[in-house]
Amino acid sequence: MKVAVLGGASTYTPEFVDGISRLGLDITELALMDPDTSRLSVVASLCRRMLARVGNACTIVETADLDVAVTGAAAVIIQLRVGGQAARDRDETWPLSCGCIGQETTGAGGLAKALRTVPVVLSLAARVRELNPQAWIVNFTNPVGIVTRALLDEGHRAIGLCNVAIGLQRLFAELLDVRPETVELTHVGLNHLSWETEVRVGGESVLPRLLGEWGERVADDVELPPSLLRSTGTIPSYYLRYFYCHDALVRENQGAPTRASVVAEIERELLARYADPTLETKPELLTRRGGAYYSEAAVALLAALLGDGAASRQVVNIRNNGILPMLPEHAVIEVSALVDASGATAIPVGDVPPLAAGLIAHVSAYEELAVDAAVNGGRERIERALLAHPLIGQLDAASALTELLLAENASWLEPAG
Amino acid sequence: MKVAVLGGASTYTPEFVDGISRLGLDITELALMDPDTSRLSVVASLCRRMLARVGNACTIVETADLDVAVTGAAAVIIQLRVGGQAARDRDETWPLSCGCIGQETTGAGGLAKALRTVPVVLSLAARVRELNPQAWIVNFTNPVGIVTRALLDEGHRAIGLCNVAIGLQRLFAELLDVRPETVELTHVGLNHLSWETEVRVGGESVLPRLLGEWGERVADDVELPPSLLRSTGTIPSYYLRYFYCHDALVRENQGAPTRASVVAEIERELLARYADPTLETKPELLTRRGGAYYSEAAVALLAALLGDGAASRQVVNIRNNGILPMLPEHAVIEVSALVDASGATAIPVGDVPPLAAGLIAHVSAYEELAVDAAVNGGRERIERALLAHPLIGQLDAASALTELLLAENASWLEPAG
Amino acid sequence: MKVAVLGGASTYTPEFVDGISRLGLDITELALMDPDTSRLSVVASLCRRMLARVGNACTIVETADLDVAVTGAAAVIIQLRVGGQAARDRDETWPLSCGCIGQETTGAGGLAKALRTVPVVLSLAARVRELNPQAWIVNFTNPVGIVTRALLDEGHRAIGLCNVAIGLQRLFAELLDVRPETVELTHVGLNHLSWETEVRVGGESVLPRLLGEWGERVADDVELPPSLLRSTGTIPSYYLRYFYCHDALVRENQGAPTRASVVAEIERELLARYADPTLETKPELLTRRGGAYYSEAAVALLAALLGDGAASRQVVNIRNNGILPMLPEHAVIEVSALVDASGATAIPVGDVPPLAAGLIAHVSAYEELAVDAAVNGGRERIERALLAHPLIGQLDAASALTELLLAENASWLEPAG
Amino acid sequence: MKVAVLGGASTYTPEFVDGISRLGLDITELALMDPDTSRLSVVASLCRRMLARVGNACTIVETADLDVAVTGAAAVIIQLRVGGQAARDRDETWPLSCGCIGQETTGAGGLAKALRTVPVVLSLAARVRELNPQAWIVNFTNPVGIVTRALLDEGHRAIGLCNVAIGLQRLFAELLDVRPETVELTHVGLNHLSWETEVRVGGESVLPRLLGEWGERVADDVELPPSLLRSTGTIPSYYLRYFYCHDALVRENQGAPTRASVVAEIERELLARYADPTLETKPELLTRRGGAYYSEAAVALLAALLGDGAASRQVVNIRNNGILPMLPEHAVIEVSALVDASGATAIPVGDVPPLAAGLIAHVSAYEELAVDAAVNGGRERIERALLAHPLIGQLDAASALTELLLAENASWLEPAG
Repeated sequence: MKVAVLGGASTYTPEFVDGISRLGLDITELALMDPDTSRLSVVASLCRRMLARVGNACTIVETADLDVAVTGAAAVIIQLRVGGQAARDRDETWPLSCGCIGQETTGAGGLAKALRTVPVVLSLAARVRELNPQAWIVNFTNPVGIVTRALLDEGHRAIGLCNVAIGLQRLFAELLDVRPETVELTHVGLNHLSWETEVRVGGESVLPRLLGEWGERVADDVELPPSLLRSTGTIPSYYLRYFYCHDALVRENQGAPTRASVVAEIERELLARYADPTLETKPELLTRRGGAYYSEAAVALLAALLGDGAASRQVVNIRNNGILPMLPEHAVIEVSALVDASGATAIPVGDVPPLAAGLIAHVSAYEELAVDAAVNGGRERIERALLAHPLIGQLDAASALTELLLAENASWLEPAG
Repeated sequence: MKVAVLGGASTYTPEFVDGISRLGLDITELALMDPDTSRLSVVASLCRRMLARVGNACTIVETADLDVAVTGAAAVIIQLRVGGQAARDRDETWPLSCGCIGQETTGAGGLAKALRTVPVVLSLAARVRELNPQAWIVNFTNPVGIVTRALLDEGHRAIGLCNVAIGLQRLFAELLDVRPETVELTHVGLNHLSWETEVRVGGESVLPRLLGEWGERVADDVELPPSLLRSTGTIPSYYLRYFYCHDALVRENQGAPTRASVVAEIERELLARYADPTLETKPELLTRRGGAYYSEAAVALLAALLGDGAASRQVVNIRNNGILPMLPEHAVIEVSALVDASGATAIPVGDVPPLAAGLIAHVSAYEELAVDAAVNGGRERIERALLAHPLIGQLDAASALTELLLAENASWLEPAG
Repeated sequence: MKVAVLGGASTYTPEFVDGISRLGLDITELALMDPDTSRLSVVASLCRRMLARVGNACTIVETADLDVAVTGAAAVIIQLRVGGQAARDRDETWPLSCGCIGQETTGAGGLAKALRTVPVVLSLAARVRELNPQAWIVNFTNPVGIVTRALLDEGHRAIGLCNVAIGLQRLFAELLDVRPETVELTHVGLNHLSWETEVRVGGESVLPRLLGEWGERVADDVELPPSLLRSTGTIPSYYLRYFYCHDALVRENQGAPTRASVVAEIERELLARYADPTLETKPELLTRRGGAYYSEAAVALLAALLGDGAASRQVVNIRNNGILPMLPEHAVIEVSALVDASGATAIPVGDVPPLAAGLIAHVSAYEELAVDAAVNGGRERIERALLAHPLIGQLDAASALTELLLAENASWLEPAG
Repeated sequence: MKVAVLGGASTYTPEFVDGISRLGLDITELALMDPDTSRLSVVASLCRRMLARVGNACTIVETADLDVAVTGAAAVIIQLRVGGQAARDRDETWPLSCGCIGQETTGAGGLAKALRTVPVVLSLAARVRELNPQAWIVNFTNPVGIVTRALLDEGHRAIGLCNVAIGLQRLFAELLDVRPETVELTHVGLNHLSWETEVRVGGESVLPRLLGEWGERVADDVELPPSLLRSTGTIPSYYLRYFYCHDALVRENQGAPTRASVVAEIERELLARYADPTLETKPELLTRRGGAYYSEAAVALLAALLGDGAASRQVVNIRNNGILPMLPEHAVIEVSALVDASGATAIPVGDVPPLAAGLIAHVSAYEELAVDAAVNGGRERIERALLAHPLIGQLDAASALTELLLAENASWLEPAG
């Protein structure tokens, strides 16, 4: 079985390869495709050394040719960053000048990334379908919710994945001292806008114990006050602080180094280490790149989609289809689902607290307009999407941010704009 | 047929009485109930002179006794202002100190009004039901959406009414030079958060003409830019500017006289004129009080609810029951409906544009929490409702506004808080 | 020798009386004058018990009659609070709604206090001069700088006093483990806008040691970062944080209880204890009222002004007369001076760092306009003073704050406005 | 007589050459020095055609060699833009992200320009002195006040010039229908922070008439409300709106095209026209570049400095020397002066209104620290200068802006930083 990775020169790739051999995903060929062939060569060589060290016979193919990568693949992973960390650095900066958070997936910066990314991903996916209509497209590309929605709207056999949920699952398992697989999340919302509204071990709710005994520890992890978790009886994801603490974070970020600049530095160092021909394992530094448990989530999803075994419970980005009643059927949500070779089936989530439901509906409506702007282009669609975002929502700000977004992304958006 | 008005000493009452005789609502007794008996006497005397002038035989009863007013009434109108203009003045002031709009129905000021008002209205309604279970409760009390929702949650035979929609209908009729009754609105949203998504005359859409030919004029009326109306193909109500132009209005309101202080001055002057025993008509000044077409809306609704004729099309506040798919069944929405003696049946609204749908869902979730806070009390419920409001939405602001709300409303909320 | 205290029912008075006997100020009669005679009776009785306990023969006279209090007094202390803690509570609140700090001496709240206070103080001082032209007027009334300037402009024999400098002197003495009297400050600036630019013990500079060894401790006391103290080589007073950390403090104060409400609660409790006929000493709780070392400063100043001994070094509010070159001669500054029976002579301060000098000049220009507005009244003068304040400085804010100030202080300013 | 222009390839140069022949400045050689020799060639050729057209025999020398340009020159004009419009574009952008105005001479952007510019100007001036110690250095380089102060601090024979005052003089002359030379300004303050506190024609004050009859017109010109001019009895320069209307301008600038981008476009077009070999006059478009009456001011100043006639009255940037009492002797002010071959002597200005005096003193203290930071470098000096600026003044903002300034200007400041 062959798997292709588009954007294979990512510094994450060794993490994924580590997962393949460590977690026993049975693939015979891994095709790493990337236009940056010199970087790809560094990454691919390390991956080969890693597999060799543990005696794994999987072949690593490196290529800049999409057709070569995709032909014969059972699954195609898409993990792109259009414009690289430099573009992200700008996404994190210019929205601040209008008093809005600069972040690569949330708010105006997230829309900029979506506008740059969606056309590229759709174009790749179109070729994947031509060559290989049965292949699963597994999307890790941020903003995962919007990109996955654009893929599904075009009829692709796609599913979106993020590591937020698995990170919380592992944290809870550690706190409760149980095996991770026994922790079942009721994960509600959208990508980067989610709440755990129930957590069970062996069928029993452990949420009260997590909030009671471990409330401070969990709150610390998601960087929100324990009182919020306890009074709502839910565990919001870390990204909710961009909403609940928006203005404080804007002030904190003004003049501070961007996350992009930090990551760029880490990546430079990582690539230098990868190039060391004696290195045969992923370096410890990789954990500081973000993306904890990325390989666990990816390998588990591929195993379920490509295997022939029983369905396994995983948190994925899929069509709503009535699971969240405040959203249209065609919205894309992030939810616990049973995944097998036929795809993912969402597990019902029960009542959604109004505090979460209102925000989810608001952001999901923005995402619908964001996909529209990314696919159809034009200043007016961009402005409307920004006005629809709960963190923006005002005419002046939407107009000013539209100008900045267009000016900052002229090289990517000019043909479409 | 008898109709009771709770809060009958309102300066609006002569407007309503004017409508009764002008529009031919057939009632034999109008019971005006109010605890402020001296003001009631002034208002009731004018009403009697107005009816006498046109030879209308309807009897005006003035009373401070709820039971006297309500017994035998076919409909009970509730139009209260707990705390009067003085409390409204504060609602319009203290939220500004946290950078939030001060407004009597929107945002933190609106929640304060809801918290003061809902318990009073529910207590009156409970007695109405005991004495007169078949009576319709027609609610004009702001915030109309939240108060009506609280009434319906308690099982009352209630319906909410506001003059925003009828005002737009009359404006469109004037612009198009047609009779008002021929203008059919598709009115979508919540009270004070609504859009006209379609306008028809004789079955044909006139919205393109209104936006094209009359775009500037309509935009001027709702105080929003014409480009917004044209690019969305909808006509938002005037209250949307508290969202789309929030920060600009906060700045505008800082240090400016409150609307409450302006209204209080108008009311002082109105009452002085009402007391003139030679006055037999409503004074022109009443139009500056706000509430245009209030009597038209109220009389039409009462005529439909209490008559035995065909259903008539009116915009009312009722249960959602599936009309707006992004809201729960039990939410209260403001919608065009067919009203007759059996009540109101909403007319389907078609697709709701995402720009409107997201905001409606967000505010409706807030309203659910606002009713919870008003009925069950407690600092934590207030804070949660404020956090759920799209104009607040941050922990710091929700906490600070909760303290201010409690401090400013201590005399009303202490027993419940 | 007789001393009069205008505003003698202040809860501070027992502190002063404690100082008289503890520090050996030789006076035979202390006249406490206050319009609130019932509160005055409680305070005066405690003072008598305190003096009796230590065998001090000084007579306490209590009176509501200014002439009785002032006649024959060698010094008249003025310590008023026009409008009481209730007015202060408002001063601390309404400026927040324009994004400005609410504080009783700084910014718009301070101007409100000045406008309420200056006419009252000038009227009292005029009568003092008629009855007793040789008496010293010692002003403790806030804003001390503006009130003292108004007194000096009217030609009064006045001097202003505040406890900020003595508090720092005692702190430094404690840290350095030396007697307080040996610590000589070079205190530069205005009341509540001051810097210690040099600190000497026995002629030697101890400022480097205070900033080095005790930098964190001193910074903690003035609530500013140690890095600021070290990089500027000065110790700003606590009030500088209203400038250097303005927006953060505005956010902190939004929705928080006002200092006025805290003080009002402490005063209620203090007066209850004062009323206990067995109490013969000042209660510990008095230290939480603020005003540490108030009695030390006041007794030392009176001893110098009324004695016949050598001049003593004290920090006082007096005419500039060329000490600070960036200010007019007639500005009032707060400065270390040699005080004896002929009055206070400022000690030259050396170079003033530009960082301090610019702000001092800006605020002093505001103070000149504040005195003008307080003495001559009128909306335009108020607006100009606010525009001249470095924490306001913008036309929109000055206009909005003027409206609020006038509305909030209508009962005090109507005759003058 | 020879004059040198450093930065001679400026699009302004034809304006200056136009002035030379039109106003009859008697020079035999004009040396244009610039490192951008291809642009210089375009500009110099047009200048030669302009002079030829009117039969002016002055020789234009174009050179990239400072020594060639300066040797033998009686005056050296410095008009540089280190970093060009691209750097200015950034100066106008990044301060917005901290809520501060982005402007090339005011606030944080102005400091950035000063830091880039002062070392370059001082290095050029040092060589001028070596070659030609008697030459006057006439500085047009912004921020004129800070750059001129740095030049004077180094002992150069320098004088600063700006066109704000002459623009107002010409406006007043036009309104009053008199010859410009008859209008005498009392010009008070700093460069880009100035007020006309008196305006005379033939010895008589015309300020009341300008404020009364022409108040709206003048206010419109300086973009401030007429009420401000009338209530203060002064005419502030256009730059005061960056202080009095700061936050409104920040909002206006967010997302709007920068002035730099507009100017860059005009310059591209101007240079295209200059290159037309048939063009023999300055194009009309040059007036949109800004700098009205630049040639009048420059020619008049050179005529006075280099001539042997009577002193003429001009507004220049020179040492304070006691003219503004709230500033140190060594501060640089912008003031009406009598200029002749011996230099400029300031004309006393009378009383300065406190509203102006406070702000002038505050900004002048900042300028002292700005020169210190520009000459001596280092993060701490930059941060202190920003903290000293009345538009910044807070620790958080000063720290964040310092980071941004350093990051945005790394290529210019790294050696010094």
